[in-house]
Amino acid sequence: MADPATVTTDAKRRHDPELRGFASDNYAGAHPEILAALALANGGHQISYGEDEYTQALQRVIRSHFGQTAQAFPVFNGTGANVVALQSVTDRWGAVICADSAHIHVDECGAPERVGGLKLLPVPTPDGKLTPELIDREAYGWDDEHRAMPQVVSIAQSTELGTVYTPDEIRAICEHAHQRGMLVHLDGSRLANAAASLDRPMRAFTNAVGVDILSLGGTKNGMVFGEAVVVINREAPRAMKHVRKLSMQLPSKMRFVSVQLEALLAGDLWLRNARHANTMARRLADGVGGVGGVEIVHPVESNAVFAKVPHDVAERLQKRFRFYFWDEAAGLVRWMCSFDTTEADVDSFTAALVEELGRQ
Amino acid sequence: MADPATVTTDAKRRHDPELRGFASDNYAGAHPEILAALALANGGHQISYGEDEYTQALQRVIRSHFGQTAQAFPVFNGTGANVVALQSVTDRWGAVICADSAHIHVDECGAPERVGGLKLLPVPTPDGKLTPELIDREAYGWDDEHRAMPQVVSIAQSTELGTVYTPDEIRAICEHAHQRGMLVHLDGSRLANAAASLDRPMRAFTNAVGVDILSLGGTKNGMVFGEAVVVINREAPRAMKHVRKLSMQLPSKMRFVSVQLEALLAGDLWLRNARHANTMARRLADGVGGVGGVEIVHPVESNAVFAKVPHDVAERLQKRFRFYFWDEAAGLVRWMCSFDTTEADVDSFTAALVEELGRQ
Amino acid sequence: MADPATVTTDAKRRHDPELRGFASDNYAGAHPEILAALALANGGHQISYGEDEYTQALQRVIRSHFGQTAQAFPVFNGTGANVVALQSVTDRWGAVICADSAHIHVDECGAPERVGGLKLLPVPTPDGKLTPELIDREAYGWDDEHRAMPQVVSIAQSTELGTVYTPDEIRAICEHAHQRGMLVHLDGSRLANAAASLDRPMRAFTNAVGVDILSLGGTKNGMVFGEAVVVINREAPRAMKHVRKLSMQLPSKMRFVSVQLEALLAGDLWLRNARHANTMARRLADGVGGVGGVEIVHPVESNAVFAKVPHDVAERLQKRFRFYFWDEAAGLVRWMCSFDTTEADVDSFTAALVEELGRQ
Amino acid sequence: MADPATVTTDAKRRHDPELRGFASDNYAGAHPEILAALALANGGHQISYGEDEYTQALQRVIRSHFGQTAQAFPVFNGTGANVVALQSVTDRWGAVICADSAHIHVDECGAPERVGGLKLLPVPTPDGKLTPELIDREAYGWDDEHRAMPQVVSIAQSTELGTVYTPDEIRAICEHAHQRGMLVHLDGSRLANAAASLDRPMRAFTNAVGVDILSLGGTKNGMVFGEAVVVINREAPRAMKHVRKLSMQLPSKMRFVSVQLEALLAGDLWLRNARHANTMARRLADGVGGVGGVEIVHPVESNAVFAKVPHDVAERLQKRFRFYFWDEAAGLVRWMCSFDTTEADVDSFTAALVEELGRQ
Repeated sequence: MADPATVTTDAKRRHDPELRGFASDNYAGAHPEILAALALANGGHQISYGEDEYTQALQRVIRSHFGQTAQAFPVFNGTGANVVALQSVTDRWGAVICADSAHIHVDECGAPERVGGLKLLPVPTPDGKLTPELIDREAYGWDDEHRAMPQVVSIAQSTELGTVYTPDEIRAICEHAHQRGMLVHLDGSRLANAAASLDRPMRAFTNAVGVDILSLGGTKNGMVFGEAVVVINREAPRAMKHVRKLSMQLPSKMRFVSVQLEALLAGDLWLRNARHANTMARRLADGVGGVGGVEIVHPVESNAVFAKVPHDVAERLQKRFRFYFWDEAAGLVRWMCSFDTTEADVDSFTAALVEELGRQ
Repeated sequence: MADPATVTTDAKRRHDPELRGFASDNYAGAHPEILAALALANGGHQISYGEDEYTQALQRVIRSHFGQTAQAFPVFNGTGANVVALQSVTDRWGAVICADSAHIHVDECGAPERVGGLKLLPVPTPDGKLTPELIDREAYGWDDEHRAMPQVVSIAQSTELGTVYTPDEIRAICEHAHQRGMLVHLDGSRLANAAASLDRPMRAFTNAVGVDILSLGGTKNGMVFGEAVVVINREAPRAMKHVRKLSMQLPSKMRFVSVQLEALLAGDLWLRNARHANTMARRLADGVGGVGGVEIVHPVESNAVFAKVPHDVAERLQKRFRFYFWDEAAGLVRWMCSFDTTEADVDSFTAALVEELGRQ
Repeated sequence: MADPATVTTDAKRRHDPELRGFASDNYAGAHPEILAALALANGGHQISYGEDEYTQALQRVIRSHFGQTAQAFPVFNGTGANVVALQSVTDRWGAVICADSAHIHVDECGAPERVGGLKLLPVPTPDGKLTPELIDREAYGWDDEHRAMPQVVSIAQSTELGTVYTPDEIRAICEHAHQRGMLVHLDGSRLANAAASLDRPMRAFTNAVGVDILSLGGTKNGMVFGEAVVVINREAPRAMKHVRKLSMQLPSKMRFVSVQLEALLAGDLWLRNARHANTMARRLADGVGGVGGVEIVHPVESNAVFAKVPHDVAERLQKRFRFYFWDEAAGLVRWMCSFDTTEADVDSFTAALVEELGRQ
Repeated sequence: MADPATVTTDAKRRHDPELRGFASDNYAGAHPEILAALALANGGHQISYGEDEYTQALQRVIRSHFGQTAQAFPVFNGTGANVVALQSVTDRWGAVICADSAHIHVDECGAPERVGGLKLLPVPTPDGKLTPELIDREAYGWDDEHRAMPQVVSIAQSTELGTVYTPDEIRAICEHAHQRGMLVHLDGSRLANAAASLDRPMRAFTNAVGVDILSLGGTKNGMVFGEAVVVINREAPRAMKHVRKLSMQLPSKMRFVSVQLEALLAGDLWLRNARHANTMARRLADGVGGVGGVEIVHPVESNAVFAKVPHDVAERLQKRFRFYFWDEAAGLVRWMCSFDTTEADVDSFTAALVEELGRQ
């Protein structure tokens, strides 16, 4: 096969590969090791739809992280992973208890409801984290046909607000749910960031504490694309392959998703990337935390910093670095770091923020 | 950024990159120019979800192929492209007339019905191709609330049976549909193969003859992953971006889909790949066509050969080369060629077939 | 409670209660015994949603017809009964094999697909009746995730074309389906007409021959409204009450559906009504069958007569009696008889037809 | 036609028509004038599915209440009315803002999500009533494809908590919604009770203040079954008839729904029934309000009384009169009055409550 480095293409480079911002970890590209893995899996024929060598090998890697029962089902994206996972563990009449800030409720354009016919029971939380007490606000009425039957509790680790559950907190949720006949789904689009934050292996807050099924993120941690549904409790889901296909999340050339996940997870790339992103967020929080006019509003436990800054300052700063308002009316902004954020990026940003604050 | 060629990864090569078969064009990997394009688009930050430079540039390429009104919406896969496209041009009460051999009816695990609530009205055809007369078997009753309202005719080019519509045939279908207030969707997962077969530009049998919206294939023609919904009739679809998102077909790092499509379509890679696959299918058909015991059952107009062979011969041959039965009871097999099929592959296969036939 | 006969209402009679046609058995009103039953169940409070005395009593009546395992779930209408029943015996990935003339495919505006996410696999039939051979055209590929999994065969008794299966024909279908791991649903919106036609109890072609679940019609046989899903194979459906509720088919004042079904089924009202309707159809068929210019196109086995007549004759006749074209292009009309059709109605209609034919 | 009063039926009376409780207004039967109306519409043939004389006449009655643009679409039940109405005014990508105590969110087993693919955006409220400020918690992000698009605000009058909006409150909501491009749906399963409570015609808080579409209740106000979707803003809904059919809410013998609605609405039966139920609830609240150990927790503005009583008292009382816990953990009960509740019923209940409180 041709050496990719010497191949010419009709596509053109159209961007500055040295320009980065703080808008989202999916503004970043792919880690070079990921591209190298794609090249390595290329060439020749491999069975499509998941019976290839790379997808088989991935299972061993997944088991090394999530235990002997774990099984990975590669999919395209995070919304897909969530909706496939949730469908596989609910009946037509099932409902899903989640935080009202959950990605599945606020950021998926209703895909759980529209694709899966899922009923969500969102619960307000102070920090994006559910607790047994909060779950109980919706965990009742299983025999009442008028009520969508609560069958799953869905939590995110780390949460949409950048907070991280301790293993004990997740264990308590799992025990509480299981005692009531419910399963636990974990949205792990940023699972690696939580592991880096807790300095614990991913198993410590998934299979070891009772999580039944999870969405394992790849894209936000340096992949080109791709996530996986990881089934831990094999009793739980039914006909995963059919559910994945009917949800339009079955990659035909699956080797290319699986080899990326292998590149990420077989060694420590997953942890290096996540740890770096978290460290950059910490550096950013430390840099701006003491500055007058800036208030950090959630604990900085992963790669996100949520802060309040004066509206005009935020707007001027947005002209210099990309980032989003989280709640514009409240003056709340979100700054995300990613695997490729540099110390220089953070320091320039901090300096610019101080400068803009000084212009008031 | 690091040179991918010198980067090491924890993933391992696990397959023989020189081994190929005739099972499917998605058993093939990616064309080296595609991998080169990925590398080119990598590095730095780009806006996610479609406002990146590559997706913008892709629009110009798409217009050069499909006319000034054309607009591309990159998605992950073919089923996704079809279901997003069909949802965007139907109401909640709409129905889609298609061939009963259509991929949307037989090969998508009910995704059109389950994801989109779409009603399909499948019509038996001799060769996978609809005609105005065949359409009329289901094109009636628009005012009858008991009947799902026929709003779209969906055809495939090339068809699931490897046959190819002439531009005039598609024009007749479009005129017929439009006169009855219906739109036309074209499933072009192998559109390039049809263009190569007809030796006409893609526009000659899409926008030039009245197609309103199409699914443009990439994966089967040498991409790692990715397709696009191409909207030609801008009056037709509504809220495409929302429909794509709620269908879980919105790639976050969209630059990586778009740059692959650019690599394919900006020059002639799309045509080189498709023409080669077709030529190999032609060579295969020519090689085996005259052999006793082999009957070619559909016109070989693209990259597929459908043939009848004795069952035991097929089974022995499958131990040497991968391919599928299409209808095992009928002794019908399908041999697919792809962009990377070589003349030597075809000739070895033909020789093996002759050999196995001789063993009877 | 007030005697209904002496109560005045602000509603007004607005139609001629002596005028009848041949358009449909749901153009008829309710049998007087049904209205009497409503009055009898009225007054006082009864638990809503199915725990009332009338719904409990109905279970005994249902078991007397359909065996000791039978259980009735009253619903509002026939489409509702079908879609509730089919959802209860399919998974998210399930498909339903049916005749391409089935009510669920042609007359429910896509409710099975849209409400239940059900995939239908329609098979062309000569007379509206499936056979094991016809079922096999779609009964395959259970392990193939690309294919919606065939889980249920749905037949209608009598069929949309007025034909009737023998008990042995249904037994053969049930055995065939069960051997392949599929269940059998029977759409019995006109089940009583089939029983009258075969001169057999309803059990003879339902529970006695292996039907797992059925839709039991009431509206077309003299009720104001109401049908029931009857579960025979208790292993088969899951969470029927939740499925009925989420399908919006749970009557709050269920006593009023149940008491109508009791009035119909506890004695022989169901059979008197159906036998009468069939007899009238037979009389009509006999009366017009020998008339030149009229061709009866399906066996007249229940309460429907399908005939070909010259188009202008049909149109003139429609000005005198209501009925529908079944296939206007083919000159095919349908004449339906109901429980309240009189011999005089039939004879006037026959005479009018002869007269209009004579005007040609 | 036979006189219903003299007809015998095989059904049997199985309940005490003088026994009533306080569980729900759908525990009551039908008002005698409603049964008289059914008899009046019976006999002869009428076009099915809505082109009958009674459904035509109903339109005039509906216009007299809801203005010249109003149009009624009879359906079977309240959940059906809500889900048909909401589907008709939303796109595939639409979302509905509602109170988190709304019937559509808590009491329909997910029918809006499962049947209609609707995304609900529930907002916590103190008393079941939305306000412009509360709506704004979810009214944003119309252009953001990640967010289900808020297209409708749905309120209930009276609410699930028995509270009633003033006309001005609804006007403010409608203006607020319309300014933001959203429509307003009103769940009026107890609309008559609100009118009686406010002593205003129904128009005063529907069409006169900007409501676009409403669910008009019948069952809970004395009908056997039946509700109607009433379209006021004719620009708003699309293809209502198809939406009703695909939602399995199209009654075949529609004359029987329409004539009941006529009996209710042509004169003042609707108001008599509702006013009586409200008066009984008022009497109940007045009777128990001053009793030690009973706390009335929501304003008694329609036919419901929500109260806190000691748990053991409630349980003992339930053995004498039927009623439900609303929130058992909180000791909260709901007592509903209906059109047939008598003063004696209320007084016996009050006396029993006092007695049980005395036993503590």
